Amino acid sequence: MKNICTKPSRLSRTALTLIVFFTLLAQLPAQSLSNDTDAAFVRKIYDQALTDGRCYPWLEYLSLNIGNRLSGSASAEKAVQWTKSMLDTLGLDSVWLQPVMVPHWVRGEAEQVRVTGSPKYGTFDMKALALGGSVGTAPRGISAEVVEVKTWEELDKLNERGIRGKIVFYNRPMDPTKIRTFEAYGGAVDQRVGGASRAAKYGAVGVLVRSMTLALDDVPHTGTLHYDSTYTLIPAVAISTMAAEKLSRLLKEEGKATVFMKTSCQMLPDAPSFNVIGEIRGSEQPGQVIAVGGHLDSWDVGQGTHDDGTGCTQSMDVLRILKSLGYRPRNTIRCVMFMNEENGLRGGKKYAEEAQRKGEFHLAAIESDAGGFTPRGLTFEGDDAVIGKFFEKVSAYGPLFEPYGLKISRGGSGSDVGPLRGMKGLLCGYSPDSQRYFDIHHTAADTFDKVNKRELELGAASMAALVYLLDKYGL
Amino acid sequence: MKNICTKPSRLSRTALTLIVFFTLLAQLPAQSLSNDTDAAFVRKIYDQALTDGRCYPWLEYLSLNIGNRLSGSASAEKAVQWTKSMLDTLGLDSVWLQPVMVPHWVRGEAEQVRVTGSPKYGTFDMKALALGGSVGTAPRGISAEVVEVKTWEELDKLNERGIRGKIVFYNRPMDPTKIRTFEAYGGAVDQRVGGASRAAKYGAVGVLVRSMTLALDDVPHTGTLHYDSTYTLIPAVAISTMAAEKLSRLLKEEGKATVFMKTSCQMLPDAPSFNVIGEIRGSEQPGQVIAVGGHLDSWDVGQGTHDDGTGCTQSMDVLRILKSLGYRPRNTIRCVMFMNEENGLRGGKKYAEEAQRKGEFHLAAIESDAGGFTPRGLTFEGDDAVIGKFFEKVSAYGPLFEPYGLKISRGGSGSDVGPLRGMKGLLCGYSPDSQRYFDIHHTAADTFDKVNKRELELGAASMAALVYLLDKYGL
Repeated sequence: MKNICTKPSRLSRTALTLIVFFTLLAQLPAQSLSNDTDAAFVRKIYDQALTDGRCYPWLEYLSLNIGNRLSGSASAEKAVQWTKSMLDTLGLDSVWLQPVMVPHWVRGEAEQVRVTGSPKYGTFDMKALALGGSVGTAPRGISAEVVEVKTWEELDKLNERGIRGKIVFYNRPMDPTKIRTFEAYGGAVDQRVGGASRAAKYGAVGVLVRSMTLALDDVPHTGTLHYDSTYTLIPAVAISTMAAEKLSRLLKEEGKATVFMKTSCQMLPDAPSFNVIGEIRGSEQPGQVIAVGGHLDSWDVGQGTHDDGTGCTQSMDVLRILKSLGYRPRNTIRCVMFMNEENGLRGGKKYAEEAQRKGEFHLAAIESDAGGFTPRGLTFEGDDAVIGKFFEKVSAYGPLFEPYGLKISRGGSGSDVGPLRGMKGLLCGYSPDSQRYFDIHHTAADTFDKVNKRELELGAASMAALVYLLDKYGL
Repeated sequence: MKNICTKPSRLSRTALTLIVFFTLLAQLPAQSLSNDTDAAFVRKIYDQALTDGRCYPWLEYLSLNIGNRLSGSASAEKAVQWTKSMLDTLGLDSVWLQPVMVPHWVRGEAEQVRVTGSPKYGTFDMKALALGGSVGTAPRGISAEVVEVKTWEELDKLNERGIRGKIVFYNRPMDPTKIRTFEAYGGAVDQRVGGASRAAKYGAVGVLVRSMTLALDDVPHTGTLHYDSTYTLIPAVAISTMAAEKLSRLLKEEGKATVFMKTSCQMLPDAPSFNVIGEIRGSEQPGQVIAVGGHLDSWDVGQGTHDDGTGCTQSMDVLRILKSLGYRPRNTIRCVMFMNEENGLRGGKKYAEEAQRKGEFHLAAIESDAGGFTPRGLTFEGDDAVIGKFFEKVSAYGPLFEPYGLKISRGGSGSDVGPLRGMKGLLCGYSPDSQRYFDIHHTAADTFDKVNKRELELGAASMAALVYLLDKYGL
């Protein structure tokens, strides 16, 4: 809780004056911003996006004509080609595909997950999706008693005696009191990511995970798991929050429950794919790059619209907006549509490797991967020296973003730009309003109709304005 | 553009120090806030709303089981009784209905509005809704040539020669570059409100108005018009923005167009209705009131969900939240569900009259009538003396709202609390994100599925926190 205005009587006037002065001094930009010019150009950027933006029709095409696009799938390949073809129309200096080998996981047939033989509830299906990367069950499925846990402590306490031969049901909900929903996600997603191997360690034969959402509904949310190869790879599925609530109630009422699960997902050999990249070459420092991106792959349900068609089409529009305003950047400005954020991050890693190899300095890398909702902020991170040195400089952009409702703060960037961290540039995350995101994240409900055109356009404009300021003032 | 951090070199250190000091001093609260206590209680309010809120299920019932509820309609009466019955369950000190006579306008049969005999486009229907309060056409409808204008200057220039016997088509769009969409609405809604009489002055026989929305779609938006009784009352309808674009194109291409309109709306005699009110009596100053409200009536299409079922159910939840936390207010805290905001404001006027009559001082009146979207701010107004004296005091609440993403600023409140302005209290508007509001405002698309539960609850919590602070610290 920040409140520099309280309890003034306890501080002498002089002390207060000095504190205020130095606090303010610390926030002064390292070099002056030309405020009138900058404010006017930022305004032009927003006007361009709101009157002539392309991200919305692009996103419509990507969502409705290509749809979901898991790494290695035919639709991911289609998305790569289409994205390149759109960039090719923008008159950029270069557009290219950066090859990368990606994991190729397939879901197989629709999951069957059901409680069987409950005295009160009988046999009933639960809405479920296999977790990405999960092995399938035996061809005939598996049937076992279920044991519910909410914490790792409960799991460890049950131990092999309580777990061997059973299905572990992870049912710790996301915390609804977190204002930023990503924090609530962060406090629950360990169950999905690590639950299978930690249960396998004690001899479990399968895993059910409560879907990662704050909504109480019947929509299952998939997402990646990480196996620890020390233990048997056991199948894992997410069930809807309504199914989780019902199963939990049943366990309380009846003391035990048997679940049947049948999935046929499998990991195929790695497949060739690409990051899609377009750039406007810097007029003064072509070897210095400001990158803005999202990830082109999505889970294999829904249309991959908010996750992360929005980030891709906004990033493409950043370059188009700046170009349409006749802006000639000092540094190279690049949009990168990364492949394979969801289940491997191979695209992000490859991009950083190639940048390193070519000796490109990434002055800044910005990612939009939190949905295409209304803009709330821009968050910055980097290695300690970088963020310590440069955060106050970008903080000075704050007033320029105020009319558009964005705050500058320290915070996370994005998975795909993460591998650039060692290269001493700033990393930035575009931060839209988070309330609606986990209603649809990794589900069949992540579709184009959930997007508001203006919210999407305001996001593209916000990133374009940041790119403009970073390009103009450097680090 | 506010940027106190720029061009420091032009100011001496001393001057800067002094400026900063006095700027800050001006922002000091007139009395100290107990920040830790207040922050903790505000946190409890948000926790309560997010874990046990009632506004969402209430809004679901109001939307799906009662639906739209224009003043004077049977469903408005049903909404009054249901709202009272919900308040009756909350253990408030008083719940009552405040009688008020309201206008009773009925739409009649579905509107028929079509372009006829276009050489290129033939005859085609346009999606249309009669404006609220409009007279109907002759029973057989009317058919006339259309003339398009975007400004009053164009209208006045056409004059009687260009207008007599014709239908005037107002086609000035809302400005997409306004960041807050209410500003764009404010820049276009004069056509809907005043267009009929201003066209009738020059002998027009009817009016078409481009729908008040930034979306390009086929959904017509109704809303009130005001007739100037000096001129003939002519029928007026809103057409969808897609229909407006098509008609405008046709006029450009073909030079003229004929439109047929048939509506059967009419104004019936005034009908009895009610404001619905519940209160927790003040323990120290029962004659001083803090009111929080929304309007219970809606237009007669859709479910009246965001306009303004959200404001009503949030206001009811404000009292429930404070009560459930055991908060005992010093002043009387009241929720008011006003009747007839949409087409007469009779409820707001009646409420102020009664307050005046009873000598109640409204310390503050807060309205939520801008949709149930994610919270962005609280805006304050009042008569000059009031706002000048008290705004800096409420500004000091700012840091307490920061963790929840709200800013305190000067700005509009709400139509229903407006009539209290003369009574020297503060007026406040709850300000949610505005990007999605005019997609659905006054349309068949204003339905419950457009609401995000958490956004709604965060709004209720924000208003409850404001009520708590106003009650604790007074003016």
